[in-house]
Amino acid sequence: MDNQLTLTALPNIPLIQRGDDLAAIILRGLTDAPIALADGDVIVLAQKIVSKAEGRMVRLRDVTPSPRARELAQQTGKDARFCEVVLWDMREIVRVREGLLIVETHQGWVCANAGIDRSNVAPHDDEEWILRLPEDADRSACDLRARLRDASGCDVGIVINDTHGRAWRNGAIGIAIGVAGIPALEDLRGQPDLFGYHLQVTVVGLADQIASAASLLQGQADEGRPIVHARGIPFSQRDGAAREIVRAKEMDLFR
Amino acid sequence: MDNQLTLTALPNIPLIQRGDDLAAIILRGLTDAPIALADGDVIVLAQKIVSKAEGRMVRLRDVTPSPRARELAQQTGKDARFCEVVLWDMREIVRVREGLLIVETHQGWVCANAGIDRSNVAPHDDEEWILRLPEDADRSACDLRARLRDASGCDVGIVINDTHGRAWRNGAIGIAIGVAGIPALEDLRGQPDLFGYHLQVTVVGLADQIASAASLLQGQADEGRPIVHARGIPFSQRDGAAREIVRAKEMDLFR
Repeated sequence: MDNQLTLTALPNIPLIQRGDDLAAIILRGLTDAPIALADGDVIVLAQKIVSKAEGRMVRLRDVTPSPRARELAQQTGKDARFCEVVLWDMREIVRVREGLLIVETHQGWVCANAGIDRSNVAPHDDEEWILRLPEDADRSACDLRARLRDASGCDVGIVINDTHGRAWRNGAIGIAIGVAGIPALEDLRGQPDLFGYHLQVTVVGLADQIASAASLLQGQADEGRPIVHARGIPFSQRDGAAREIVRAKEMDLFR
Repeated sequence: MDNQLTLTALPNIPLIQRGDDLAAIILRGLTDAPIALADGDVIVLAQKIVSKAEGRMVRLRDVTPSPRARELAQQTGKDARFCEVVLWDMREIVRVREGLLIVETHQGWVCANAGIDRSNVAPHDDEEWILRLPEDADRSACDLRARLRDASGCDVGIVINDTHGRAWRNGAIGIAIGVAGIPALEDLRGQPDLFGYHLQVTVVGLADQIASAASLLQGQADEGRPIVHARGIPFSQRDGAAREIVRAKEMDLFR
């Protein structure tokens, strides 16, 4: 049905470790659901499991903070070693306040702490670990899409999602940081609306909307539902990338 | 299933006119789908049809621009009468540039043109009409929820959604401007994550995520799918309102 969209959180996803084969884990989860993969389906993965599989964990004890990190720690009240890792992953500080550090990452995402997360990193371990974003989540998405195509013969879209705060609005929402096989943005410019006017909202954040939809099922506190299968999302056939979503700084009025 | 979320765009929704009974139209659409409404379901309505039913259309010919509207028209290149109506609905200009007018509405939404839309207003009419947001979309949502409860006996959530641009990210996404029967924000503060750390993302924009999910099916150019039924969204039992989402100006670092 073209008027229906179904999202399913895949069951039995294990805790992800460095080096785990996410494509194999997705395929097993689909079998357990059970869902027969089809062309046009979209698989959404929480950033955390992609980062973990790619070994992006850092043990805080191993980090030596630079003077600049110590200064940021003073300004924010955050751990200086944590601030050091944020510095590794950012190209510019956007806002800094007590308790708050919003930066632009190397990929161009404006977000708190360069997307680095402290929670949910390692079980049965008294050490403090943090988790960096994937080095290139678009590439991660591309690789996963190719693996799934090879294994299943199906052409699926991939969205790697994270949860970001926003300007002006309370509440963090799911957004896309890695995309493959679908357009990250749907460009509707030039399409007349029902009465022949030109549309005012002309570029739609397709991948971000998919990221938010999946986030409704993924939850926050539970790492057991990091992978969501989506069927029935209308999109045009174009291979996209999350980097389309990055607004060039000179085009951004809110820095 | 608690791991599955299904969104259905209701069929056969007519073009909405001033005074139309949206509750009756929703119930008819559910019958045609067919979907038997149940407690915990959420109905998402595009802002446009709520505005139209509430008679929020303004004929541009009837508007006399004030000097301030003429000035805004000069700065933006927009129609001075259009700018006048934006002035009616805003409390503060946030950014103004050629082609762009971002304001804070009386409800607190930071968005382009106070959410006023030029497209899709009136068929078979050479006049230029524009459409203002509902005067109080939370109240509209509350009224609809009560009507649906009276008619069906079911306690459903209501989200009235619009499409907004954002800071930092390209692509407009669905967001909530009116909410009833569900929390607009889910507060997870204090909940430990899987390994006992405290969650970092603690307040989730539930209603905005639902708005984005529904927007995937609603499309932009087609007024034929303005109502989406959602089943399977996990949320805590609390009656909320979209005004929870408004970030107080003094708490906002991006004005």
